[in-house]
Amino acid sequence: PAPFDPKEHPHMRYNPLSGEWVLVSPHRLKRPWKGQVEKGQDEVVPPWDPKNPLCPRAVRANDEVNPDYQNTFVFGNDFPAMLRGTPEPGPSKHPLLQAAPAGGSCRVMCFHPRSDVTLPLMTTPDITKVIDEWAVQTEDLGSTHEWVQVFENKGKMMGCSNPHPHCQIWACQFLPNEAQKSDTNQRAYYKEHGKQLLLDYVELEMKEKERVIAENPHWLAVVPYWASWPYQVMLLPKRHVLRLPDLTSEERTSLAEVMKEFLIKYDNLFECSFPYSMGWHGAPTGSYLKEDCSHWQLHAIYYPPLLRSATVRKFMVGFEMLGQPQRDLTAEQAAEKLRSLPNIHYKVKQE
Amino acid sequence: PAPFDPKEHPHMRYNPLSGEWVLVSPHRLKRPWKGQVEKGQDEVVPPWDPKNPLCPRAVRANDEVNPDYQNTFVFGNDFPAMLRGTPEPGPSKHPLLQAAPAGGSCRVMCFHPRSDVTLPLMTTPDITKVIDEWAVQTEDLGSTHEWVQVFENKGKMMGCSNPHPHCQIWACQFLPNEAQKSDTNQRAYYKEHGKQLLLDYVELEMKEKERVIAENPHWLAVVPYWASWPYQVMLLPKRHVLRLPDLTSEERTSLAEVMKEFLIKYDNLFECSFPYSMGWHGAPTGSYLKEDCSHWQLHAIYYPPLLRSATVRKFMVGFEMLGQPQRDLTAEQAAEKLRSLPNIHYKVKQE
Ligand SMILES: O=P(O)(O)O[C@H]1O[C@H](CO)[C@@H](O)[C@H](O)[C@H]1O
Ligand SMILES: O=P(O)(O)O[C@H]1O[C@H](CO)[C@@H](O)[C@H](O)[C@H]1O
Repeated sequence: PAPFDPKEHPHMRYNPLSGEWVLVSPHRLKRPWKGQVEKGQDEVVPPWDPKNPLCPRAVRANDEVNPDYQNTFVFGNDFPAMLRGTPEPGPSKHPLLQAAPAGGSCRVMCFHPRSDVTLPLMTTPDITKVIDEWAVQTEDLGSTHEWVQVFENKGKMMGCSNPHPHCQIWACQFLPNEAQKSDTNQRAYYKEHGKQLLLDYVELEMKEKERVIAENPHWLAVVPYWASWPYQVMLLPKRHVLRLPDLTSEERTSLAEVMKEFLIKYDNLFECSFPYSMGWHGAPTGSYLKEDCSHWQLHAIYYPPLLRSATVRKFMVGFEMLGQPQRDLTAEQAAEKLRSLPNIHYKVKQE
Repeated sequence: PAPFDPKEHPHMRYNPLSGEWVLVSPHRLKRPWKGQVEKGQDEVVPPWDPKNPLCPRAVRANDEVNPDYQNTFVFGNDFPAMLRGTPEPGPSKHPLLQAAPAGGSCRVMCFHPRSDVTLPLMTTPDITKVIDEWAVQTEDLGSTHEWVQVFENKGKMMGCSNPHPHCQIWACQFLPNEAQKSDTNQRAYYKEHGKQLLLDYVELEMKEKERVIAENPHWLAVVPYWASWPYQVMLLPKRHVLRLPDLTSEERTSLAEVMKEFLIKYDNLFECSFPYSMGWHGAPTGSYLKEDCSHWQLHAIYYPPLLRSATVRKFMVGFEMLGQPQRDLTAEQAAEKLRSLPNIHYKVKQE
């Protein structure tokens, strides 16, 4: 019988952070598409719009006026999903009707005063200011919250309701599901192997190279072996780093550079402003600041929905929701495609 | 301080089947929406289209001609995500690069010869034929597969690439993630309480009533306490049933009735053909047929994406992907809304 070929034969891959499997069906790449085609993402956005609550000097829902900010700007989410100090559910009356407190704080963070830029189109110094603010926010909210989730929903396809470049920070007084799983699995690996799961992984990927899409002295960007979304990317520091505030100033500049590099590739892939949800996972904060978290390694995860073009996405639906995630092209094929793209943004090239 | 009110105060709820939590933010209902608005789902579909590979007498991608089928029709997926008998990955060379075999079979099942009907618009006898075929397929594929996932992606919003009423059946020679978690959690509950988790749950919901949306002597349809999607629904038999083929003929007719009833409510909610992904979870099959699976209870899960209207959906994105699912209205509020809707389909009413 023919030998196993991951580019040809269906198989599963294990995500050691979540403890779950992904189904890989590379033979399915030849399948035609007749389903939903969404509108391209590139809309024309004015640089400033007084009616946009994220713009400098604009009025927000609560009648506050934004400052004339020059770099980043952070404010409390006007419609927060979590609050602090509200009444908490008492003990549950039945094991099948369990409720728990959900204290937390939600903030919005603008990346830049202009609405018509995105991270890959910003300068490295401007991206560095975003990274600095991420660190400040993590430090600030982390002193009183167990988990600080920095995340960006980019593009309408990812539910982003405002084109102004921004991210959100939801800080929780508890560990959300994904944080919990990642903590448990990194801890178990550390206990078993005496080394950090993600530092071992960095070493492995630097040797294997086939899943690397961008790299510099401090950072590695890979399509992880266990990626479930077609062009999923993981961004990792090469040295052991627990949390965003622990990054040195050199590492922050270097992160801005690697982010710009691979986000340009993202945009160049289908020549559109590439939609995604991304976020940072680092060691938990709050009461964990006093505990040993050395099993943790800081990393960013990018989940982009596009599959074939600026308008055809991967749907994580029926089998994925009821069974497990499924992908067509392999992580190595996705990495090769991204790696080979030019480092100059298609919009800059056109000018 | 004010007492805890689940309709007012943020909290978390525990899903005892998946072992995960959902964040409930009922105070957030007043939030305005400015994000992506999708096209309405109701397209005009011709009853028969020779170019549609799901229609009777049409030619499929592999040049096979469909029979002139009168009720349901099942065939092998022309672009299957799983195959049987392909070479399998060998032992993994590193704990962080783990692969596993993914043997399986994928079938497509048409519900009806006409393209312009959906389940809620079909007659109860016709829906019963669909249920009978689900049972036949589960029995057939279940003899050689550990897990038979029957699922329907309905509507373009849920990645459905063909408007003809149909579902898919992906049978796996392994337990996918969600099946694994559900099996583990039902087993643990049974061991601890000596009763089936989902039979205890049926009893509880029949007493509490506030999450019930439809009911008949054999079946219960509820918005589960731990629902993550706004109008998520779970359908359960009232007696202990392991798998679809175990349903009596009376229970099948009764299931067709309750399905029609609550699917009409779904369509009436926003006066559109309500999109969703749904699927059946029952005791595993294959080698499990010889094992004691009495901790299992058959159930169907419906995950619909709509939130506010036929065009505004809930996005499970940034925080949801990196932290945990979040919802605004409570399960009880969703159930009340669905329950109060008329049992006559808005399209029938208009005629
Ligand atoms: O129905 P299709 O076109 O085969 O495919 C659809 O359902 C599959 C199973 O849930 C998903 O993997 C695909 O992403 C989705 O587009
Ligand atoms: O950015 P928004 O509009 O607050 O909201 C968006 O991100 C949230 C966090 O991921 C999600 O819960 C919402 O469904 C999504 O629309």
